[in-house]
Amino acid sequence: MAAIWFAKLGINARIIDKRGTKIFTGQADGLQPRALEVFNSFGFAHRPLKEASVGFESCYYEPDANGDIHKVARKVEGVVGISRFNGSVIHQGRIEQWFTDVIDEFSGNTLKVERPFLPESLVVDESKIQDQSAYPITVTVKKLSDQDAAPDQFGHKLENGLYRQFAGDQEREFVTPPESREIIHAKYVLGTDGAHSWVRKQLGIVPEGESTDYIWGVLDIVPITNLPDIRKRCAIHSVSDGSIMIIPREGDIVRFYIQLNEAPREPEDGSAAAGTKSRVDRSKITPESILETARKILHPYTLDVAETHWFTGYHIGQRVAPKFEKWERVFIAGDACHTHSPKAGQGMNISMMDTFNLAWKVAHVVQGKASPAILSTYEEERRQVAKDLIDYDFKLSRLFSGKPGTGGEEGTISTDEFRDFIDKGSAFTTGCTVDYGASVLVSKPAREDSEVKYASPLATELFVGRRFPDNRLVMQCDGRPWFIHDKMPSDGRWRLIDFCGDFKSSPALAAQLVAVGDYFSSPESFIARYTPAGERVDSVIELILVHASDADNVEWDDFPLAFRPRDSRRVMDYWKIYGDMESLHGGTGEGYEKLGIRRDVGALVVVRPDGYVSMVTTPDVAGVNEVAKFFEGFFIPVAEQSTYM
Amino acid sequence: MAAIWFAKLGINARIIDKRGTKIFTGQADGLQPRALEVFNSFGFAHRPLKEASVGFESCYYEPDANGDIHKVARKVEGVVGISRFNGSVIHQGRIEQWFTDVIDEFSGNTLKVERPFLPESLVVDESKIQDQSAYPITVTVKKLSDQDAAPDQFGHKLENGLYRQFAGDQEREFVTPPESREIIHAKYVLGTDGAHSWVRKQLGIVPEGESTDYIWGVLDIVPITNLPDIRKRCAIHSVSDGSIMIIPREGDIVRFYIQLNEAPREPEDGSAAAGTKSRVDRSKITPESILETARKILHPYTLDVAETHWFTGYHIGQRVAPKFEKWERVFIAGDACHTHSPKAGQGMNISMMDTFNLAWKVAHVVQGKASPAILSTYEEERRQVAKDLIDYDFKLSRLFSGKPGTGGEEGTISTDEFRDFIDKGSAFTTGCTVDYGASVLVSKPAREDSEVKYASPLATELFVGRRFPDNRLVMQCDGRPWFIHDKMPSDGRWRLIDFCGDFKSSPALAAQLVAVGDYFSSPESFIARYTPAGERVDSVIELILVHASDADNVEWDDFPLAFRPRDSRRVMDYWKIYGDMESLHGGTGEGYEKLGIRRDVGALVVVRPDGYVSMVTTPDVAGVNEVAKFFEGFFIPVAEQSTYM
Repeated sequence: MAAIWFAKLGINARIIDKRGTKIFTGQADGLQPRALEVFNSFGFAHRPLKEASVGFESCYYEPDANGDIHKVARKVEGVVGISRFNGSVIHQGRIEQWFTDVIDEFSGNTLKVERPFLPESLVVDESKIQDQSAYPITVTVKKLSDQDAAPDQFGHKLENGLYRQFAGDQEREFVTPPESREIIHAKYVLGTDGAHSWVRKQLGIVPEGESTDYIWGVLDIVPITNLPDIRKRCAIHSVSDGSIMIIPREGDIVRFYIQLNEAPREPEDGSAAAGTKSRVDRSKITPESILETARKILHPYTLDVAETHWFTGYHIGQRVAPKFEKWERVFIAGDACHTHSPKAGQGMNISMMDTFNLAWKVAHVVQGKASPAILSTYEEERRQVAKDLIDYDFKLSRLFSGKPGTGGEEGTISTDEFRDFIDKGSAFTTGCTVDYGASVLVSKPAREDSEVKYASPLATELFVGRRFPDNRLVMQCDGRPWFIHDKMPSDGRWRLIDFCGDFKSSPALAAQLVAVGDYFSSPESFIARYTPAGERVDSVIELILVHASDADNVEWDDFPLAFRPRDSRRVMDYWKIYGDMESLHGGTGEGYEKLGIRRDVGALVVVRPDGYVSMVTTPDVAGVNEVAKFFEGFFIPVAEQSTYM
Repeated sequence: MAAIWFAKLGINARIIDKRGTKIFTGQADGLQPRALEVFNSFGFAHRPLKEASVGFESCYYEPDANGDIHKVARKVEGVVGISRFNGSVIHQGRIEQWFTDVIDEFSGNTLKVERPFLPESLVVDESKIQDQSAYPITVTVKKLSDQDAAPDQFGHKLENGLYRQFAGDQEREFVTPPESREIIHAKYVLGTDGAHSWVRKQLGIVPEGESTDYIWGVLDIVPITNLPDIRKRCAIHSVSDGSIMIIPREGDIVRFYIQLNEAPREPEDGSAAAGTKSRVDRSKITPESILETARKILHPYTLDVAETHWFTGYHIGQRVAPKFEKWERVFIAGDACHTHSPKAGQGMNISMMDTFNLAWKVAHVVQGKASPAILSTYEEERRQVAKDLIDYDFKLSRLFSGKPGTGGEEGTISTDEFRDFIDKGSAFTTGCTVDYGASVLVSKPAREDSEVKYASPLATELFVGRRFPDNRLVMQCDGRPWFIHDKMPSDGRWRLIDFCGDFKSSPALAAQLVAVGDYFSSPESFIARYTPAGERVDSVIELILVHASDADNVEWDDFPLAFRPRDSRRVMDYWKIYGDMESLHGGTGEGYEKLGIRRDVGALVVVRPDGYVSMVTTPDVAGVNEVAKFFEGFFIPVAEQSTYM
């Protein structure tokens, strides 16, 4: 995800991977709606839409009086209307392929994953970390042979997750000498190197958290079964054989998460925390043993296997790193920052969103556009998400792994509480309600409680710090309805959206619009201040207008030229003005209402390059001045920029 | 389009083109909704959706009392709700690129356009035309040098349409000798070689029709203008300087069709029909001269040009070939069959639909699945469309080219009639109302008048001979809403859709459903009769069920196994059963009502591989027997098939 950003923004980057190949199957498979929105912002959401399984319904099975499982509820999957996209599922290999394809496209085939490369050392010259033109970080990497890069796989012929990827500082005898060594000088390093992160170790960061007793297996199979809801997401609690989660996948594949009450364990070595059992001996887990357990849980339904694609086993634990970076130069992201159980489908998603949050900020600083002060928002914003995730997973995994009951009896959990918890948590798992706190990039009152969302009285349903919600608006010049997200691609630009209201019915609003237009047409405008000479006026901050006047009552010439500027060839830009009106083909309108903006008042909204709302203020010159002040907090005027690239 | 079909269906085909290169710009640019539906059926509709300009509104400009043009109407473009897609516009080079990409994908990079190849002779051995295993056609082709393949372009530096592509039988001195000659033995030949079709000449077919006096120019430019509706489709009549049609295109490009009242003409050579002027001398047309005329018509609005991409000039005429094939072995399609003016945006579309209609039929015969009797339906079905198009274009071009007025004054046309004609014709120009007559492939009463549409009383809004309309239905197994078109790809299969009604509320309907299921589960089923041993049961005819029972009242086991068969590995097919019900995420339901099918009666519908409705009958065993009889009309049972490929 970081590489997509860097390819898109033209940042000189390298991708170093110790794996010898991409992933081909298995692993993470769930794409939450917010991840799909982000894919869409990079132009490849049509690929999951075509290829993935999409979740719309879920079913709950519990034991009846005879101890046989039976369906107790059919529910909506996800949150209706929260996003244009629904949670989708496909194996990680396919997702990696989309990523490498889009990196190729954006970089003109110049940015590639370099593998297998093992990092050997990371040294930071602390005397240079304030110098934006310096390369304070030195990383030594060595190229491995394919043989050495292959992880220790535990004696199964099938592809599976039962291996320990070796870490860079781990004792290991290489069969062949490294083919080559290279010294890389870098301004920034992002460690996206997994739960056993080598980069994290170099920073001396130790994750905090704990393990549980719960052991689960995963089977990706083409099932032969008479369970009627096999193509819906199912949560199944048996009396005493454990629980199953069913996630239908692309094609005929289904993923089963299966609780393994009787998993083989490693001998005690004293490392396990008091009160917990020793670690599961993952090398003893086989697809057959997992399947055997699944059959017990599913009784009276039957389960056979036509194809096995992948399997693994894991011990549930929740850990989060106390720090996500050091010197604002070396960052960690993804599993390097947070590990937890996979069943909420959050791991890959939240990991992708980590670097989606970080990389444009690094790019801004590298490009000399913004002060390095923005980099501290990465840890502030993403560590809160990680903590929320860990809390969520802690509760979910206990409810999922517990024996079904009312919660009253010793050692049981309440299945009512379980279903209720999933219902309430489903907004969280869509990824669309992530809420960033007040910072130099998010202008809102500071709050202690991260769960309290903030909206300006000007836009009561538009939450500052959350992603700007999607909605269909009508392009003024040609009447085409657009999902506004499709016109806000991830291209590094900030967006300033003037909801100018129904200016054709209000002389006051009309005068405000003229004044705002005059401001942005003047050479003193802050947009001019931050836009390099010779570049398009919208290349750093894009000015967008969303009016609320009646389509039959508004003509193209009614809009100030600031919103429809001509370029150096005198060609007009027709693509910045929208009407919140009914399209002649239907299906639009009520955009103001959805955001809680009054048509007789309006609002001015600042949206970050990653689509999150920075600020809401009044759509007048006073509001524009507030926005100017906000940008002064981190933007560097062109006159003061130097280029370091 | 024929090559896409052949690539998809694995038919051994070659594509011979005398052009040295693909098209890069200009030419045809309009994609009607039906063409986009067909692109979608081949899996590439996301490309126009991303890249093309899409039409939603149109404006009409007419002279005011001072002779200045002004807007008189803003109207919806296209027909609301007729298709998921709206008419879209992009240059032909891009469309050709999508086509070659999808041909590559379907054929595994084996089917390529071979160019530049010029055909020299076409000989048919009439003694062999009844023999389906023979190759009765011999075509000789010669490979040209790139220099020789380049058409005579009329002295402009810009790419334009002002050339005469040389025909194979035309006297022409080649600069270099042909690089090689090749003799090709073929079962079938499709001549899709344009208005001056060489193949058509070999068949001795002479197009019928006439030319008009109207001469128009085309300019593809990035305009600099103050015309406010430049990004909408505009029809503009000036007092006496002629008319303009504006078609906004991809990016900032706009296409202008500009009437040229004072175009330079060729000297009289007596070839012009009585009463018409001589042909326009296209070599004298320049972008500057076209622009000059455009400026007069647009007054008082101004027009300058930032970029010119392409231009051309043409003489309006309407011609249609009396025959579209000979021996049911050599066919012509596209401009080889019908030529007319481009302004209705029909030429490329109807040409694509010609071979979309033809090629699957040829494939059926080549594969030994169907009797050659189905091939005569090509001319029957497509010549009617061509005639309707010619009639439409005849009226439209006269109304567009006429002087504006009330129609009462001598030499004027009624602009009210013009707008009314476009309104009424807009369904025709979407391509979605094409209506094929009764034939071996379309079971309905024969009618004289092609404009009278036929629906069975069982499905009063589903017209037999028209394309099966799109609608969202809910996949029973997982609750996912689908546009049904997305589940009916162009893959050569027939589809039999059982609208079994609300079978959970009606014992009679339930019994019918069981009986129909029993029929298709038996080895005597006609599907079994036409499906080769060892192939999937749905490989020739796909059986689909659309029920109308309440989602909360129906379980997976309620459906007969014929609609959810297990394959040889015992893996169940979950993807054939839909509910016409509200999705838990909204936006579905009322599919029965849209088709005029009663939930307490149901219907059985046969859909051809190209998506057109063949037949509507009762959803019971009597109906199934009727369908069996329909298929007996042309399908060849596997037991009697031989393979000729």
